Amino acid sequence: MRYSQMLIRTAKEIPAEAEVISHQLLLRAGFIRKLTSGLYTYLPLGLAAIRKVEAIVREEMNRAGAQELLMPMVQPADLWQESGRWVKYGPELLRFQDRHNREYCLGPTHEEVITDIARRELHSYRQLPVNLYQIQTKFRDEIRPRFGLMRGREFIMKDAYSFDVSDEAAGQSYQTMRDAYTRIFQRCGLEFRAVEADSGSIGGSFSHEFMVLADTGEDTLVICQECEYAANVEKAKVVLLAEPASETTDDSTGEVQDCIKVETPGMKKVDRVAEFLKVTPQQVIKTMIYLADEEPVAVLVRGDREVQSVKLKNLLDVAEVELAEDDTVWKLTKLPVGYIGPVNIPIKMVADQEVMTMINAVTGANEKGHHLTGVTPGRDFTPVAVGDLRQITKEDRCPVCQGALELTEGIEVGHIFKLGTNYSEAMHAVYQDQEGKEQAMVMGCYGIGISRVVAAAIEQNHDENGIIFPLPLAPVQVIVLNLSIKNEETTATAEKLYQDLQAAGIEVLLDDRDERPGSKFKDADLIGIPYRVTVGKTWEKEGKVELRTRRDGTTTLLDYEQAASTITTSIQDELNALK
Amino acid sequence: MRYSQMLIRTAKEIPAEAEVISHQLLLRAGFIRKLTSGLYTYLPLGLAAIRKVEAIVREEMNRAGAQELLMPMVQPADLWQESGRWVKYGPELLRFQDRHNREYCLGPTHEEVITDIARRELHSYRQLPVNLYQIQTKFRDEIRPRFGLMRGREFIMKDAYSFDVSDEAAGQSYQTMRDAYTRIFQRCGLEFRAVEADSGSIGGSFSHEFMVLADTGEDTLVICQECEYAANVEKAKVVLLAEPASETTDDSTGEVQDCIKVETPGMKKVDRVAEFLKVTPQQVIKTMIYLADEEPVAVLVRGDREVQSVKLKNLLDVAEVELAEDDTVWKLTKLPVGYIGPVNIPIKMVADQEVMTMINAVTGANEKGHHLTGVTPGRDFTPVAVGDLRQITKEDRCPVCQGALELTEGIEVGHIFKLGTNYSEAMHAVYQDQEGKEQAMVMGCYGIGISRVVAAAIEQNHDENGIIFPLPLAPVQVIVLNLSIKNEETTATAEKLYQDLQAAGIEVLLDDRDERPGSKFKDADLIGIPYRVTVGKTWEKEGKVELRTRRDGTTTLLDYEQAASTITTSIQDELNALK
Repeated sequence: MRYSQMLIRTAKEIPAEAEVISHQLLLRAGFIRKLTSGLYTYLPLGLAAIRKVEAIVREEMNRAGAQELLMPMVQPADLWQESGRWVKYGPELLRFQDRHNREYCLGPTHEEVITDIARRELHSYRQLPVNLYQIQTKFRDEIRPRFGLMRGREFIMKDAYSFDVSDEAAGQSYQTMRDAYTRIFQRCGLEFRAVEADSGSIGGSFSHEFMVLADTGEDTLVICQECEYAANVEKAKVVLLAEPASETTDDSTGEVQDCIKVETPGMKKVDRVAEFLKVTPQQVIKTMIYLADEEPVAVLVRGDREVQSVKLKNLLDVAEVELAEDDTVWKLTKLPVGYIGPVNIPIKMVADQEVMTMINAVTGANEKGHHLTGVTPGRDFTPVAVGDLRQITKEDRCPVCQGALELTEGIEVGHIFKLGTNYSEAMHAVYQDQEGKEQAMVMGCYGIGISRVVAAAIEQNHDENGIIFPLPLAPVQVIVLNLSIKNEETTATAEKLYQDLQAAGIEVLLDDRDERPGSKFKDADLIGIPYRVTVGKTWEKEGKVELRTRRDGTTTLLDYEQAASTITTSIQDELNALK
Repeated sequence: MRYSQMLIRTAKEIPAEAEVISHQLLLRAGFIRKLTSGLYTYLPLGLAAIRKVEAIVREEMNRAGAQELLMPMVQPADLWQESGRWVKYGPELLRFQDRHNREYCLGPTHEEVITDIARRELHSYRQLPVNLYQIQTKFRDEIRPRFGLMRGREFIMKDAYSFDVSDEAAGQSYQTMRDAYTRIFQRCGLEFRAVEADSGSIGGSFSHEFMVLADTGEDTLVICQECEYAANVEKAKVVLLAEPASETTDDSTGEVQDCIKVETPGMKKVDRVAEFLKVTPQQVIKTMIYLADEEPVAVLVRGDREVQSVKLKNLLDVAEVELAEDDTVWKLTKLPVGYIGPVNIPIKMVADQEVMTMINAVTGANEKGHHLTGVTPGRDFTPVAVGDLRQITKEDRCPVCQGALELTEGIEVGHIFKLGTNYSEAMHAVYQDQEGKEQAMVMGCYGIGISRVVAAAIEQNHDENGIIFPLPLAPVQVIVLNLSIKNEETTATAEKLYQDLQAAGIEVLLDDRDERPGSKFKDADLIGIPYRVTVGKTWEKEGKVELRTRRDGTTTLLDYEQAASTITTSIQDELNALK
């Protein structure tokens, strides 16, 4: 590739539309362009990086015995009605009608279609196990698409689906995929971690997310310092410590007091109420109003805790939960924001398990400017459901070994699910076992956000000058800078090096533009090509070219004759080390 | 690939849903499965064939200097409103709204999106020419999807777009693509022809279709026997012969008669009227009622001619034309079907050029059971437009050299267009020329129906036993049949051959199933793998394996030791011959 002939337009300025670093750098480096909200064009360099991920994924999926196919992106409603998700999926499922007024959706995922294929093609235990995958553009109508390739509406995904004769066999398939994913992200040159995760709208009993570690990650992970436990905070189970109740009262007598209404004028926040009433936030019950599929629900947590909305969604078994705006609360419930509490509350109420261990707590009185003291769950109020609803903290203990926890940020790039027989039962995907009896196939599904891997790689690997691509994902491996395009000998050398590297199977971009050296250096850094070779002054003076690695900035002077072979060897060694 | 582990389910029966041979064979060979009308899943073998076409296309596009990118499949309405096609495109453009009620369509083609990219990224003559392409799933909401991959709603397409500084430069880009397409279809191993074509809803001044020749083709091509002229009948210009009028009268006096109404009870067809009135069909003017964007239009052609609906659509400048059903004619016009004629007709009327040269013709009288004789155009009626509206026949002459014509059937697999400045002017895609003046970029666009190429290859290459894949498109190049899987030595030999061929870079399918030889032979033929190697009786008896070519059925006995290298050499020679 010659830079002068390529569609690569870089920019110095940070684009106003981009909040996160990968989005900024993908735009600045000319990798992607926005068409409209959540829809991006991958320009040639961006697509080249995507193809790198695809190739690694394809190789490892094939190696794991999976077979590639390709399903339609447009899916008929009837299959989704069979699985029950036509109603359940929520507005991220883009639904539309064709010219004959038949209903369809744009595939956000393909459980229904693949289950339909399985029930038509697979009939005997002798045909199982089967793992089928595709690499395809998906569409999810995100309410607020953002962060470039991190949360777009169209994105490229590898989705795989396994079919097995039993739970045990399905466990094997799951493990095979877990291993394949580990190899995939290793080969991508990324720092990552597999964590227990919530199964979301896909359903199923059990799942792991593969997280690329990055400070800027949208997800928070809990990692046990002592055992192997690691989980997304959405999933991480909070274990109640032995005697939590005693910690929440300051008199420690454990004696249950009467419930008394007190004036708390203007005290809307937990901290101010606690200070005013001379208690700790741990003695306050916080009452939050959520909209669960648009119905208001009161959610109780201890004053110093945060509600974990995915846990809430699961407890309520609804498609979407959202914290209600103040005026929505008033409109729907006539309750005074800041003074809401569980006693005699007129709407549905659920509580975090910890709340139920509290005694003599402070709560809102459901009356402006007033709170209650001496409130005790069970006696004074009874939620319709109690469960683990709060966000875990690093002060909590590991649910497996009680060890200390660490929290860190990550970006979800892969997700594997044990689906069990949810879909196969709903859609009657059965096989005949050895006795000739019909059995539901046991399923698993396995996704990788191909385009998101590129964004996550950048979130993890960049500096103030631009992207630092891990070698396996770089759109090209080497950039050759010709710094004196008007000097015939320099140009001939750069050209020769370009040809020699290509002949050795290396992917090279030759910067043959009529630009100042400064621009060429800046662009090479911004685009993040792992190896840079400069043919310029040192070649003219000493007959040497300069090799620089993008990641650590080390430079080496190479005799021109050795340059191509030295670089080729380095690249091969680096790639082999990841295999 | 081991057959026993692959998702390949073949069928003996011809599926009732499939009319054309490629559709039948793709289903029977287990290459595709229908999801719903016009939507197909490509199963592993089908996808493998698709990927072969993609790889050839990609290589030749890159060789021709085009750059690959990837645009969204979902496109915002506003770009289509800018180009004017939001209204003009018709119901094949699937339109829908997202969760925020914004309007979008599923991309049937990407002129608007690429022009938007060009106007944002390309600003100077120094950046041109540029040719950008993608390989992507498209959606067209066909009114009657049919013939499997031949006319589906979702299909895989390579679409490329060129941007140039001038008509002349754009002509160069067009020629480069024409050459690349020629190489692509040659390398696919197909018999094909480039023909002049109608530009359809894409617009533009000039286009060529690449047609795979096959008796079952939907398109008819006209090929001059004497010069290079070749065209789709939709486009092929009819030239009026020197004295056509004299041929249409039987008295040859050329004297213009009076227009007289005669009784023709029950005579609705041209032939019967002609016989009854003792004239030839050439003396009759046929009046057909079409719906042009739902408005009725009378179309006149000579009695023995057929209307060419694409020519009609172009003359009328409408999105869709369709022959009206008899009851629709009556409902909309109150004209008596079978007796309709141009004299005093109350609706819009257009005529084929040939009609205007007729004198003393017979036409319907617009009265049940009556016709008119002695009708002469100009005197008795005046169409609002006259043009070349009829289907060309092999009795016509070449519009270039007046040579004799031949008609043949073909399947459109590629289409290249000179777009000119239609899109760049509508969407203000301009560059600065050497004088710093703004100029509209001159565009071309170039499509290949990737999935259709596979179907067309099968239409052209099959026999009663199944598909005969051209080697470059075969999902695998060799199938090794192990005919005695219970015989350890046979199995070891088949395995070894499988490994050796793979090691030599050959794509192999090993039929290791526990099936009878007859089934294995049948399946190998049906799937259409070019080379079949049998390890069975002759190996056990004589130590030889049997190599058979699918196309001509010739068999050769090979010593086991030479088998892998002989086959490898054959395959390489055959592929090289196409380059």
